[in-house]
Amino acid sequence: MLKIAISQINPIFGDLKHNTDKIIYFINKAKKENADIVVFGELSLVGYPPNDILFKSDFIKENLSYLEKIKKYTKDILVLVGFINKDKNGVYNSCAILYNGKILNIYNKNFISDGKEKKYFLKGDKIYFYKFKGYNIAVGFLEDTINFYNLYKKADLIINLCNIPFITGKLNSFIKNIENLAKKINSFIINCNLVGFFDGVLLDGFSCIFSPKKGLIYHLNRFSEDFGIFNLDLNSSYNPIDYKVYDIEELYNALCFSVRDYVNKNGFKKVIVGLSGGIDSGVVCSLATFSLGKDNVFALIMPSRFTSSLSVRDAKKICENLGIKYSIINIEKIFKSYLSLLKLDISNIDETIENIQARIRANLLMAFSNKFKYLVLNTSNKSEISCGYSTLYGDSIGALSVLGDVFKTDIYRLADYINKDKEIIPKSVIKRAPSAELRFNQKDTDKLPEYSILDPLLKLYIFDNFNYKDINKLDYKDKIVKKVIDMVYKSEYKRRQLPIPIKVSDKTFNIDIILPITNRSKF
Amino acid sequence: MLKIAISQINPIFGDLKHNTDKIIYFINKAKKENADIVVFGELSLVGYPPNDILFKSDFIKENLSYLEKIKKYTKDILVLVGFINKDKNGVYNSCAILYNGKILNIYNKNFISDGKEKKYFLKGDKIYFYKFKGYNIAVGFLEDTINFYNLYKKADLIINLCNIPFITGKLNSFIKNIENLAKKINSFIINCNLVGFFDGVLLDGFSCIFSPKKGLIYHLNRFSEDFGIFNLDLNSSYNPIDYKVYDIEELYNALCFSVRDYVNKNGFKKVIVGLSGGIDSGVVCSLATFSLGKDNVFALIMPSRFTSSLSVRDAKKICENLGIKYSIINIEKIFKSYLSLLKLDISNIDETIENIQARIRANLLMAFSNKFKYLVLNTSNKSEISCGYSTLYGDSIGALSVLGDVFKTDIYRLADYINKDKEIIPKSVIKRAPSAELRFNQKDTDKLPEYSILDPLLKLYIFDNFNYKDINKLDYKDKIVKKVIDMVYKSEYKRRQLPIPIKVSDKTFNIDIILPITNRSKF
Repeated sequence: MLKIAISQINPIFGDLKHNTDKIIYFINKAKKENADIVVFGELSLVGYPPNDILFKSDFIKENLSYLEKIKKYTKDILVLVGFINKDKNGVYNSCAILYNGKILNIYNKNFISDGKEKKYFLKGDKIYFYKFKGYNIAVGFLEDTINFYNLYKKADLIINLCNIPFITGKLNSFIKNIENLAKKINSFIINCNLVGFFDGVLLDGFSCIFSPKKGLIYHLNRFSEDFGIFNLDLNSSYNPIDYKVYDIEELYNALCFSVRDYVNKNGFKKVIVGLSGGIDSGVVCSLATFSLGKDNVFALIMPSRFTSSLSVRDAKKICENLGIKYSIINIEKIFKSYLSLLKLDISNIDETIENIQARIRANLLMAFSNKFKYLVLNTSNKSEISCGYSTLYGDSIGALSVLGDVFKTDIYRLADYINKDKEIIPKSVIKRAPSAELRFNQKDTDKLPEYSILDPLLKLYIFDNFNYKDINKLDYKDKIVKKVIDMVYKSEYKRRQLPIPIKVSDKTFNIDIILPITNRSKF
Repeated sequence: MLKIAISQINPIFGDLKHNTDKIIYFINKAKKENADIVVFGELSLVGYPPNDILFKSDFIKENLSYLEKIKKYTKDILVLVGFINKDKNGVYNSCAILYNGKILNIYNKNFISDGKEKKYFLKGDKIYFYKFKGYNIAVGFLEDTINFYNLYKKADLIINLCNIPFITGKLNSFIKNIENLAKKINSFIINCNLVGFFDGVLLDGFSCIFSPKKGLIYHLNRFSEDFGIFNLDLNSSYNPIDYKVYDIEELYNALCFSVRDYVNKNGFKKVIVGLSGGIDSGVVCSLATFSLGKDNVFALIMPSRFTSSLSVRDAKKICENLGIKYSIINIEKIFKSYLSLLKLDISNIDETIENIQARIRANLLMAFSNKFKYLVLNTSNKSEISCGYSTLYGDSIGALSVLGDVFKTDIYRLADYINKDKEIIPKSVIKRAPSAELRFNQKDTDKLPEYSILDPLLKLYIFDNFNYKDINKLDYKDKIVKKVIDMVYKSEYKRRQLPIPIKVSDKTFNIDIILPITNRSKF
C-alpha cells in the first residue's frame, strides 16, 4: 500500500518564501501522517502566472535556491513539486522529484500547449518512471499524459501536476475524460491542482484520483486550499464517486472565491460597488458580501434625475438585505455643472449627455477607492461587453470584472440562486426590463435585442464560431444578426480597456478571444 | 533580364473587396510596365492582423474566392500574393503563385514564429523553386529564409513576403543582416512588405532588394504605399545603397504615419487632444497636426486652480503655432461640485483630490469625442506608463496611445525635432520641470527620479531584463532602483486598461511585455 498525500495549495506569485513555507508545512503534515509521497501542483513554488518575470534570471535562481531548501525536508518521503527549471538552452515548466535530501530527478513538461506558454518554456523530451516501494510510478503533467498516453502504459500509477482553468459546467466531462484515460492506459491517475484566482484565470482545485476500473475514487474540495491522504492499493476495490455538479451553484462558488482571492492577494480588504438598483450590480454586491463579509462591502447609490424611485428603493433594499453599508450620492449637481459648462441642451438627450452621467459615477467610485482603499468591482456583464453596450471610463471601470464572462441570462439564474433561501435581490429588480437609466424611459432593448435572443446568438457566434450566414439560417431575423455582429466587431477597442475578468467559460474576451480593432469583416 | 514589380500596399483588415481591387490595380500597372513578376506582401488579401476572425470559415472562403478573382488578371505575369490557405488539417499563412489564370502553387509559411501566430496557423513543410524565364526562383517568407537558409542555396533569387514590425533605430542592422544572408546564400533577396498601422503594430514598408555581392541595391519608401519596378540581371553590377537613418526623424515619421492611418482606417477624420501646456501633449498635438492637417486637430485646454498661467499661455501658443482650433474650459466649477458633494477638504490635498481633476478632464474630452466624433489621442509616455504615474480613467484615456512606447527623454528629442525649422513648442515648455499640476508646486520628481536617471534604468530593466541586483551594481542608488521596480510591478493593472500603443520599440507594454498583475517578485 502506498500512502499518497495531495497538497492543493494557493501560492502567491513571486512570494517564494510564503510558498516555500507552505510547501514545507504540508510536507511535515504528510510526514506526520506517514505518507510515502506528497505532491504539489504546477508552478507551486513560484505561483502563477509568471509571465515576463521568467526573463529575470535572478528570479529563476531564487526559485532554485528555495528548491534546495525544500530538499532538506524530504527524509523518507518522496516530494513532487512544481518549479521552474533551467539549463543552457532555456527554461522549463518542471516537476522536481525529491527524496531523502536529494533531487532524484527533474521532469520537464513535454507538451507546451499554447502560445502563452511557448513564449517562455522549452519542451521537455523525456518521460520518467520510478520504481518506488514496489510501484511503477510515472511523474508528469496531465497534458503530457493526455497527449502521449501510449508512453505511459507500463505505469501502475501516474502522478500529474496540472493547472486546468475553471470552466462552468465542464467538470463532469473532465472527469469522464480522465476516467477513460485511466482505463485506456490501465493505470491509476492522480492529478494535483493548484487552487486560486490568478490574473483572470481561476484554478478551482478538485485534485483527484482515478482508478482504471472504477473511475473517480477520490477528490479534494473545490475553491479552497485542501490536503488529503489516499491509501493506494492496486488490488483494492474502490468505490466509484458519482460527482454531481449544479452549474449555477458552481458558477456562484467560482465567482465568490475569485473575488475573495483577488482582493486578498492584492492587499485590499474592502470593495466598493456602484449599485444602480439593477440586477448586475445587485448580484455583484451579493457575491462580494458572501465572499468578503458584510463589513467589507460598500455600496454607492448614485441616482440622477433619470433614476426611478423604484431603483433607489431596490438598491437600498439590497443593501439592507445583505446588511452592508451604503451611501446615496445624487449626481445632479455635478451633472448640471457639466451641462452648463459644455452648454448642453438637456431637452435633447444624446449619447454625450448619457455618457457624462456614467463617467461622473466612475469618478465618484474612484474617489471612494482612493480615499478609503476600496477596490472597485466592475459590474458589466458578458452580453453588454460583447456588444460594447457600456460607457467606456463609465460603467466599464474597476479592478476586477466580476461578471465579465457571464451572460445576462445566467445572471438572472445567479440572482435566483442568491435568493434561494431568503430574498436578497428584490423580485422587482429581477422582473423589471433592464435599463441604464441614462435618459427617461430608456431600456436596453432600445439598442439590443431581448437578452433571451441575444445571448444564444452571441454563444453561437463567440463559442461555436458560427458564421453570419450559419446563424442567419436559424430562427433569427437577418437584421438582428447583422446588427449584433456589427456591434461585436465595432467594440473591440472598448474591450481592450476593460478590467480583467473572472474566466468562467472557455471563450473569455481578452483571454481567449482577440478580435482585430480595425475590422471590416462581415462574417 | 527579369522585370520585377514590388507592390507595397496598405490593406484594410476584413475589407477584401477593397484589398482585391487594390491588388488588381497594381497587377495592371505592373503589366503596363511589362513586368514579368509582381509581388504583394504577407496577408495582403485579407489585411492584418486577422486574429480570431480566422476561426470564421466563411471568412477563409471569401478570401479564397477573391483569390480566384485575382487569378483572372494574371495573363503573362507571375503574381505572388499573401492570403490564407486552408486544407483538411487547418489554416496556413500562405503565398499564392498565380500565372496565366492558374494557381501554379501555394507556399505555406514554414516558420510560425511566436505564440500569437501559433494560435491560428499550421506550419508548412515544403519550399518551392520555380524555373521562370531562365531564373531559379524561390518563393517564401523572410523568416523561412532566415531560419532555413541552407535550403535556399540553389536559388538565383528569393522573393519573400514579410511583415516585420517597425522598431526605431533597427533598420540599419536589419539591412546588414539581410545583406549577410544574401551573401551566405549567394542569391538575390527581394522582400515585399505591407505598410500600415495594424492594431498597435506598425509595418513601415521599405520593401527592398539585396544583391549577394553588393548588399542593398533597391528599396521602396517607408511610411507610405509604394510601387516600383526593378530590372534584375544576375550579371549586372549594381550600385550599393548606403541607407542612412536618423532615429528621431524616423520615430517622428513613424508616429505621424500611424496616427493618420489609425484615424482614417477607423472612420474618423478629426482628433482631440487634452493640452496641458506640458511637453507630452504638446508633442502629440504637433504630431497629429502634421499627420492630419490643422483643420483636423482640436485641442482642449482645461485649467484648474493649480494650473499655472504659464501653462495656459504655452498651451495657447502651441495651438497658435500649429494653427489649430482650441477651447479653454476651466474645470473649477465642476471640481468644486465634486469637492462639496464628497465633503473633501481642499486644504489637505491627497491622491483622491488630485485624481478627480484628471478624471473630470477625461470626461470632458470624451464628451467632445461623443458630440463631435473626435477620436481622443492619449498623451501618456512610456516612462510614466512603466511606473504607473498616471490617473487611471484620467490622463490614461484615449483610443490610441501616441507616445505609449516612447520614453520621456526621447519626447524631448522629438520636441527639438518638431522645432527644427520654426518654434512650435515653446522653449519654456521644454525647459520647465515636468508637472501634472494636480496640486500647487507639484513636480514629477516628487514621486519619480529625474527622467535622465529613470529612463536608462527602465531600459535596463525592461529591454535588457537586468535583475534588480545587476542594475544596483551600476551607478544607481539602491533606494531608487528598488522604488522604480516596485512601481513597475505594482502598476500592471493600470497598463492592462490602456489604449493600444504605437509600437516603436522591441519591448512594448501589452504587446511584448506582460507582467503578472498580482506580483510580489523583487527581481
